[in-house]
Parts: sequence; C-alpha cells; structure tokens
Amino acid sequence: MSSSPILSTIAVLGGTGKEGKGLAFRWAKAGYRVLIGSRNPEKAKAAAMEILDLLGGKVFVEGATNTRAAELAEIVVLTVPYSAHRETIESVRETLQGKILVDVTVPLAPPKVTRVQMPPAGSAAQEAYALLGPNVQVTSAFQNISYDLLMHPEPIECDVLVTGTSKEARLKTLKLVLAAGLIGWDAGPLENSAVVEGLTSVLIYINRESGSRNAGIKITGILAGSEHHIAL
Amino acid sequence: MSSSPILSTIAVLGGTGKEGKGLAFRWAKAGYRVLIGSRNPEKAKAAAMEILDLLGGKVFVEGATNTRAAELAEIVVLTVPYSAHRETIESVRETLQGKILVDVTVPLAPPKVTRVQMPPAGSAAQEAYALLGPNVQVTSAFQNISYDLLMHPEPIECDVLVTGTSKEARLKTLKLVLAAGLIGWDAGPLENSAVVEGLTSVLIYINRESGSRNAGIKITGILAGSEHHIAL
Repeated sequence: MSSSPILSTIAVLGGTGKEGKGLAFRWAKAGYRVLIGSRNPEKAKAAAMEILDLLGGKVFVEGATNTRAAELAEIVVLTVPYSAHRETIESVRETLQGKILVDVTVPLAPPKVTRVQMPPAGSAAQEAYALLGPNVQVTSAFQNISYDLLMHPEPIECDVLVTGTSKEARLKTLKLVLAAGLIGWDAGPLENSAVVEGLTSVLIYINRESGSRNAGIKITGILAGSEHHIAL
Repeated sequence: MSSSPILSTIAVLGGTGKEGKGLAFRWAKAGYRVLIGSRNPEKAKAAAMEILDLLGGKVFVEGATNTRAAELAEIVVLTVPYSAHRETIESVRETLQGKILVDVTVPLAPPKVTRVQMPPAGSAAQEAYALLGPNVQVTSAFQNISYDLLMHPEPIECDVLVTGTSKEARLKTLKLVLAAGLIGWDAGPLENSAVVEGLTSVLIYINRESGSRNAGIKITGILAGSEHHIAL
C-alpha cells in the first residue's frame, strides 16, 4: 500500500554488551538504521556483523566508535555499565545537544546488587540529565528487561516503564519500545526513574530467592481500550 | 480436622481510613483478632462496627485509641497519611519495642503526587525505623494496592512487595498478605521500600493518563513451583 515511513537512526552506545546488542537486534529487525557504538570500533563492527548474520543481512546495522555513532543518530541509547556511565556521557556531550538520550543504565553497586542504592542526583538518568544540560531530552527505559531474552523470538513477559524530561521524548521512546516488541507505559517525569532503576534490584532479589532468572513486572488493572500507551 | 491455630492480634493504626479499614476487613474475615486504632476512639469503634456488620458479626474486631491498639497487638500496621506519620510513630514508640511494625505509608507530597519524592531517610519506612530504633522490626507492604478494592470480594490484580529489616519480619508480613487474599513477594531489605513506595506515584500517573483507577503491578517470569513466597 503506502511506502514505509523513513525510520530514525538509533545509536546504541555500549552496544557490544548483552543489553545493547539485544536492543540493536530488535530495532534492526524492525527496520531502523542501527549504529552500534563502542570504545573499541572493532568490537562494535563484530557485534554489527553478528546481528547481520542472525537477520540474514537484510537490515541496516553498522559498528563505530561511541562518538561517531552518536553523531550520526537522532536518538542515542546508552547501555553501558554504571561504572562507565559518566565517562561515556561526557565523551558525547557536545554531539548529543538537541537530541534525545535514552538511558538504560541501572546504578548497581556490586556486590550489593539486590539493595537499592541511588546516586546523589536521585537516579542514573537524572545524573545524565545534570551532565548534559537542558538542551538534551533524557528518557529512561528498558532497565527491568532480562536481556537474555532480547535475542530470542519468544514474547517477553515484562513491561517497560518510560520516564523522561518531556512528554514528547517519552512518546518517541515508547515508539522504540513498541518497535522492540515490548509493551511500554509512560511512567511520568524523569524523577520517577529512581523507581524503575531501583526495581531492577528488587527483581534481582526475587530471582535469587526463587531460583529464577527472568523476573519482570506487568502493569495490571487498566481497562481495555484505555491503553493509550500503545496508540502512538 | 485439626483445630485452627491461634492467630495473632493485629492493630491497624489509622484504621478508620480507606486503606486501614479495607485491610482490617480482610484480616478479620480471615480469623485474626483485629484492633482498629485512631486518634479518635469513637471513630475507631464506628469503623469496627461497620466491619462487624459487613461480616455478620462472626469475627473479632474492636476499636480503640492508636496507643491502646498498639499495646494489645503483636503486629502493628500503620496506615495513616504521610502528614501524620512521624507523630503517630512517636506516640507508640515505647509500646512498639520488641514488636513488628508494618508500614503502609507512601510519602506523597501533594499536589505533585505523580512525581516520586522520598524523604531524606530514603523512604517512609526507613524514617519509621530511624524513629523506632533497632528493637523494632520494620517492614513495608501494601503501598500499591488500590484500596477501593479491599472491601470487595473480587480478586485484586496487584501483587504486594514486602521489604523489611529481617527475613523473619518479612515472612510474618507475607503471611498477612496471604491472609488478605493477595499475592506477596519478599522484595528484600528495607532500603528497597523506596522503590515500592515510589511505585505508587508511577501507578497514580498511569491511572491519570489512562483514565483508570486501579493500575497495579504483577511480578512475572518466575517458574512455576518456585514461588516460595507463598509457601509460608
């Protein structure tokens, strides 16, 4: 019927890790142009090749340095471990101005990963916003997804709570959630990211107690027909 | 076959409010001795009568002052609005020594109830623990339940995340969750209460956005047979 809309270019910084590679895989599959970023561009290219192979080559995915990937994308997704959070943000601060950063980071403090511990800014996402300044819209999402599941075709039984500095940025992020095959909810202002990030520690605790690996959460109690969250 | 075990006496401080009355109703129905506490003992007695009427009189529920109710109970549940949190705790501090306090309080800061805002202690429950000292075990629970639903017989589609200062106290609290007809999960140390309390603001936000009233959460992804949380 009508031609496909031109989809945005998404950079996935730290995209050689499990989380980033899984999200890159799903977005490439959905037709987005995906740039995998890493400090080591060779690793980024290897991760891109892996995804190309898995998807039979009919998608757009390339590897680059974090900086180059951020330069070429409209939406930048940050999937580095918390220990590299500040450094990575500072390395792309200039090129992010005017764009949207989707922060996937959970500020886990090993070895106590089952205990909620937020940084002084309130959450990793608020820390990112403080570092980037008001010309970057920051959202947070995907922190509760068990990343083992992203490279598999089975449905993932975990909703994605999206917080962010503006409704517009949250809606754009919810579109990416949907493209990844997940159910997303607008969970309000960026301050609410503390809850979503902290929920990861609670889910790790529940996994350990129950001998499971894939504890997640679902939002319940919303009347059918009122799920505006997926009507983008 | 075997005779019923003797169930504990539960005091519900602030039990004339929707939350407290709903929980008192469910525990009385389950066979617990329930004491409804209030600053105003006449109001407490009226709430107890209302529950007795609803349940046909065949249960134990009485009204008293908060202090008297706390004195007579083994487990004390706090369901006052956040504005009365500190004052109520201070009024029962002595009598709570050696007991368990289950804090249901959400530190909402009206009018911004959809924005997560935690007190300096980290959460209302941690604030309670700081006020009470190490001889009181503090747990937190029930913050995400839509209290409109507690007085109705329909199943409630929202799990209860229980945090607390010891495993023992969390297990005792999980027993009360089960007795109230709800599914509970041990969600770890009291520090994790910030997530559960804050989740209430996220659920209020989702309710407002979707025109619903009963948004809740369910834990997913746990293998069947590993739900030790209900094997109490």
